[in-house]
Amino acid sequence: MSGAMVHRVEASGPGDVSGLSQLNAHGTRAESVRAVIGKTEGNGCVNDFSRDLASRAWSDALPSGAVTVMSGGTEGVLSPHFTLISEDGGGLASPSTLRVGVAVTDAIAPAELGRRAQVDAVAAAVTRARHSAGVDVQDVHFVLVKCPLLTSGAIDATHRRGESVVCTGTYESMAHSRGAASLGVALALEEIADGVVQPALDGTVEAWSSVASASAGVEVRGCHVVLLGNAVEQPRGQRICSTVMQDAVDAASVQHLLNMIAAEGGRIVQVFAKAEADETGTIRGRRHTMLTDSDVASTRHARAAVGGLLSGLTGDTALYVSGGAEHQGPAGGGPVAIVWEPGNGGDA
Amino acid sequence: MSGAMVHRVEASGPGDVSGLSQLNAHGTRAESVRAVIGKTEGNGCVNDFSRDLASRAWSDALPSGAVTVMSGGTEGVLSPHFTLISEDGGGLASPSTLRVGVAVTDAIAPAELGRRAQVDAVAAAVTRARHSAGVDVQDVHFVLVKCPLLTSGAIDATHRRGESVVCTGTYESMAHSRGAASLGVALALEEIADGVVQPALDGTVEAWSSVASASAGVEVRGCHVVLLGNAVEQPRGQRICSTVMQDAVDAASVQHLLNMIAAEGGRIVQVFAKAEADETGTIRGRRHTMLTDSDVASTRHARAAVGGLLSGLTGDTALYVSGGAEHQGPAGGGPVAIVWEPGNGGDA
Amino acid sequence: MSGAMVHRVEASGPGDVSGLSQLNAHGTRAESVRAVIGKTEGNGCVNDFSRDLASRAWSDALPSGAVTVMSGGTEGVLSPHFTLISEDGGGLASPSTLRVGVAVTDAIAPAELGRRAQVDAVAAAVTRARHSAGVDVQDVHFVLVKCPLLTSGAIDATHRRGESVVCTGTYESMAHSRGAASLGVALALEEIADGVVQPALDGTVEAWSSVASASAGVEVRGCHVVLLGNAVEQPRGQRICSTVMQDAVDAASVQHLLNMIAAEGGRIVQVFAKAEADETGTIRGRRHTMLTDSDVASTRHARAAVGGLLSGLTGDTALYVSGGAEHQGPAGGGPVAIVWEPGNGGDA
Amino acid sequence: MSGAMVHRVEASGPGDVSGLSQLNAHGTRAESVRAVIGKTEGNGCVNDFSRDLASRAWSDALPSGAVTVMSGGTEGVLSPHFTLISEDGGGLASPSTLRVGVAVTDAIAPAELGRRAQVDAVAAAVTRARHSAGVDVQDVHFVLVKCPLLTSGAIDATHRRGESVVCTGTYESMAHSRGAASLGVALALEEIADGVVQPALDGTVEAWSSVASASAGVEVRGCHVVLLGNAVEQPRGQRICSTVMQDAVDAASVQHLLNMIAAEGGRIVQVFAKAEADETGTIRGRRHTMLTDSDVASTRHARAAVGGLLSGLTGDTALYVSGGAEHQGPAGGGPVAIVWEPGNGGDA
Repeated sequence: MSGAMVHRVEASGPGDVSGLSQLNAHGTRAESVRAVIGKTEGNGCVNDFSRDLASRAWSDALPSGAVTVMSGGTEGVLSPHFTLISEDGGGLASPSTLRVGVAVTDAIAPAELGRRAQVDAVAAAVTRARHSAGVDVQDVHFVLVKCPLLTSGAIDATHRRGESVVCTGTYESMAHSRGAASLGVALALEEIADGVVQPALDGTVEAWSSVASASAGVEVRGCHVVLLGNAVEQPRGQRICSTVMQDAVDAASVQHLLNMIAAEGGRIVQVFAKAEADETGTIRGRRHTMLTDSDVASTRHARAAVGGLLSGLTGDTALYVSGGAEHQGPAGGGPVAIVWEPGNGGDA
Repeated sequence: MSGAMVHRVEASGPGDVSGLSQLNAHGTRAESVRAVIGKTEGNGCVNDFSRDLASRAWSDALPSGAVTVMSGGTEGVLSPHFTLISEDGGGLASPSTLRVGVAVTDAIAPAELGRRAQVDAVAAAVTRARHSAGVDVQDVHFVLVKCPLLTSGAIDATHRRGESVVCTGTYESMAHSRGAASLGVALALEEIADGVVQPALDGTVEAWSSVASASAGVEVRGCHVVLLGNAVEQPRGQRICSTVMQDAVDAASVQHLLNMIAAEGGRIVQVFAKAEADETGTIRGRRHTMLTDSDVASTRHARAAVGGLLSGLTGDTALYVSGGAEHQGPAGGGPVAIVWEPGNGGDA
Repeated sequence: MSGAMVHRVEASGPGDVSGLSQLNAHGTRAESVRAVIGKTEGNGCVNDFSRDLASRAWSDALPSGAVTVMSGGTEGVLSPHFTLISEDGGGLASPSTLRVGVAVTDAIAPAELGRRAQVDAVAAAVTRARHSAGVDVQDVHFVLVKCPLLTSGAIDATHRRGESVVCTGTYESMAHSRGAASLGVALALEEIADGVVQPALDGTVEAWSSVASASAGVEVRGCHVVLLGNAVEQPRGQRICSTVMQDAVDAASVQHLLNMIAAEGGRIVQVFAKAEADETGTIRGRRHTMLTDSDVASTRHARAAVGGLLSGLTGDTALYVSGGAEHQGPAGGGPVAIVWEPGNGGDA
Repeated sequence: MSGAMVHRVEASGPGDVSGLSQLNAHGTRAESVRAVIGKTEGNGCVNDFSRDLASRAWSDALPSGAVTVMSGGTEGVLSPHFTLISEDGGGLASPSTLRVGVAVTDAIAPAELGRRAQVDAVAAAVTRARHSAGVDVQDVHFVLVKCPLLTSGAIDATHRRGESVVCTGTYESMAHSRGAASLGVALALEEIADGVVQPALDGTVEAWSSVASASAGVEVRGCHVVLLGNAVEQPRGQRICSTVMQDAVDAASVQHLLNMIAAEGGRIVQVFAKAEADETGTIRGRRHTMLTDSDVASTRHARAAVGGLLSGLTGDTALYVSGGAEHQGPAGGGPVAIVWEPGNGGDA
């Protein structure tokens, strides 16, 4: 079985693919890259063209079949970067514990977005990705989904066909798409029962995945899935662990993971986190203003705050913090996954 | 000598002064309030009218002579609130260790803003405030200054008089005003020598105060100064300590203070911090995008990130985090002051 | 019967009520002011505190009973100003043709906002205002309504009471409130039948008023109504006319009114217009980007564009252009009313 | 001599080059395209990646040597589009009156940006472009320059080399770059004397070109120049005329050109205009708020307003309106050029 390896490279701009040569310098061939996960410096909202620019540049640079997931928004101290995930192809005698699987769904029709059809499409893709990774359900620690959104044109065209869309706001559609994708992850990983899906979409029951990380963008038509987990073997090389922040200021949950890694003398390779503005308008009983700020989108606020916290806790700013955590962790909180490796870079 | 007491009250909006009645409920009379320090929910920039709204509401509610300092910007998880500082008038046998002094300069002319004249005016006011507080130079831990900015009208009028202004951008003028005010604090507290002032204004030498916190706004003409320090007596009741964050992700410096307070069983009353985007465009060698984001001001980014970090470390979101730390702590970092009291609310 | 007079005064900031003294200089007493209509320089969205600041300042300055309607947003070339509407009290032998009526509804409960209950409350207020103005239905040319919006707190409190709200986005709630208020105007002025109201709220039929101008804000609990029309008498002094822009670039409709006024040698006193981003995402078949810009609200874009057009056509920038024209004129367009007077300032 | 032809194509997004096939459908080969001028839907400021995305897509689609000029910002009613300028290669017996010339300068070093060196580089390029177009100085009606800006990285690197930059703000650097480029145009076209250049850069004298249109962006290192003018021959086919708006609401100057074109039964092919916020903070004596809005850049406001006006006057929204008119037309105003053709699409 093939082991996976996470590499993080800096970006001087959204179209900068020069990090690929760093990979080569470390002995990893471009051909072995299965996925590139970008944190680009646009607004992370509807009109974020930094994602499209990065997608095009990396699609040109990587072998076909590699999945690109670009998430916009490096608010506050966050630093734009790309995370490359390669696979050794099974040629090594002792692959690392970390495993990766990727999959892409068909295009999600505008009338399907944010609805059961999107949930099912993502769930099937997650299962395919998990099987290709060779990881058991309980050993999956991170499932990244890049999903589409509704544009003004798509909404109008759908209406003209006599079909309905889940909402008529383009920014709002990002939340619906992230939510449906995350429920798909939860369903595929047996975190929720099938009967919970529709009530969860309707908002009548709370349901969430503890490992999903969904991000919406105009640059994709289908949903791109990247799944990371651990093989059930003698631990070796890179591996992944995860937790859930209960709210946007829950440093304790993250500190717990960091302490555990530190206790093993580990080195952090990358942190993947989700952030969102609590919909009640409060955090621990105190009012926040992220939802009433008409100048700056709430997802931007949330990324900036959680990015500031995680950067302070780790001393590193090139972290993957993505905004909008619908059905990803509890309301107002979000999943956090950390890829790490033993201090000597090899066996623990 | 009179002791000071810091009270923090929530705000349902910038014009909400209902917190004053909470003060009364705790046995503190409105007449004893020397200063109100607001964190209001505007953009914290030039056209932030939440500050003016709060200033008017509190000026109406408080005794004349009370100083109002309103700082806009509750980005990310930060919660709008007001910090009231009262003085017991010296009537108590054993006043708390915490001391407060306030002062206001004359109006700063547009041609003086960001220049030596503003530095000297603020320095004189700081010295007056310190004397009224009865605190030695080395026992001052926090000096808040609310200072004016240049409006389009003021710039134009000054030019028509044949005088020059320090810069022609209104947002940019906020930085110059904060910088001059902070050098005034540093000068008054003997943190810098007189000969350093002009080169520091010119940007040819680095110079900063470790306790200054300056905030600019269109709602003031002169500079409002609020100074907090400790009396050199047997510690009792509320007191203040401070540190300096070396950069925007320096959790360690703050954690050190928090550990010290925790070791004494203390309870945090309020945290005052400054945040800014490092002018080199990097933090710990990694690029940030706060200075190249034309949609969101860098001060907003910085407040969101540092606010997220401090809220995570303290578990509290109603903190005073102010943006733009020119000559306030090292470049990219900023001073942090914490008012705390023994866990029993009384003597340590 | 009393005639009305429209005066326009400049504003150096949202809290500037000095224009009132200009009124006095023109022989109009503050006591005769029935309404002040502000165009203040906030973002015109949820967190626009310039409206609240202006409301407080004018409420303090004007006699009780005067209605304040503050609309935020002076994007592009638009100039912040206040429009004061006074009434001569009927003491004059020959009052001007222009008539004004004002009314205020009870507070609109969050569960009522954007729904039939708000429509009916506004309709009743419009009828009261029209009767007090003494104007026939067909002679009403402008009905301004300031209506409330939903805050995060109100939404949360309503949910906790087991009631529903029309939508859960605060910015989105402004549109629902403006829409219901405008249908109330249309109903009261017999522009639409009663049976059309609910389908129009549901979005299944198109229905609009040709004279309504609704603006939402956090600073009001009830709906404030200001109605302007002409008396059916020999024309004298100020009067009002109106048209409807068919889309946001419909210069022809406005130019037609301007030509008519010019033909009578008239002088424009004030222009009241509504602007909105066409929901189809296109204008005259070409794509616009107002609805996909996550950095700037579409209402801001629309005000800037229509403000630029009307300022160019009239050579004047202190115009009242308000954003969000739900049920106010056709989709993508909006009503325009012009108060003018004969060139000699007296009889035509 | 070769005639030029202007074609305008719609864009579904910044990376949409499908308009090229429309060109082919009209009998124009992609090989004959000399320049593509885009109006893309980013913020038009520092972090506008829509320009880079469009530049890459068109550079891939067009023959090498074609110049790309991408200007961001379609605020308000403006519609994203591309303007393609082709040249018939001189093969026709009777080429159109319109002539085009293109040129590119070497990379502008950060220390040169906004200074005399940039002026001279642009002036030389304009002269080269004019000669290749075969147009006399007085027959040039439009000179478009895409010029670089300063990034945080470039500023920092320049400082570390011990050199200075013209300013330390990235957004501010766009204005300096546009200003120097425009003075280069004015110098090359003999609109200003050589001795005026430095004082104009210093801001001590007012100097401007009546045909320059400069736009800054992170996607170029050198300055890209596109020049349009008329051949001094019997008028035939497309031609160009120009005027100068005296301020942002100067409809009359534009209407004069439109009337002249209408009088000849002409059809408008494209309008090129510049817009800026008057630096005095006023327009025709009334205050505007474009320079004190810390949420939306003044260039965005100006484009929205002037775009609204020109769209209303022409009934067309796919116009090229670019923001920031330093040394381009009088302060607060800007040049306007219109390409038109006789109504029959052929000879006048």
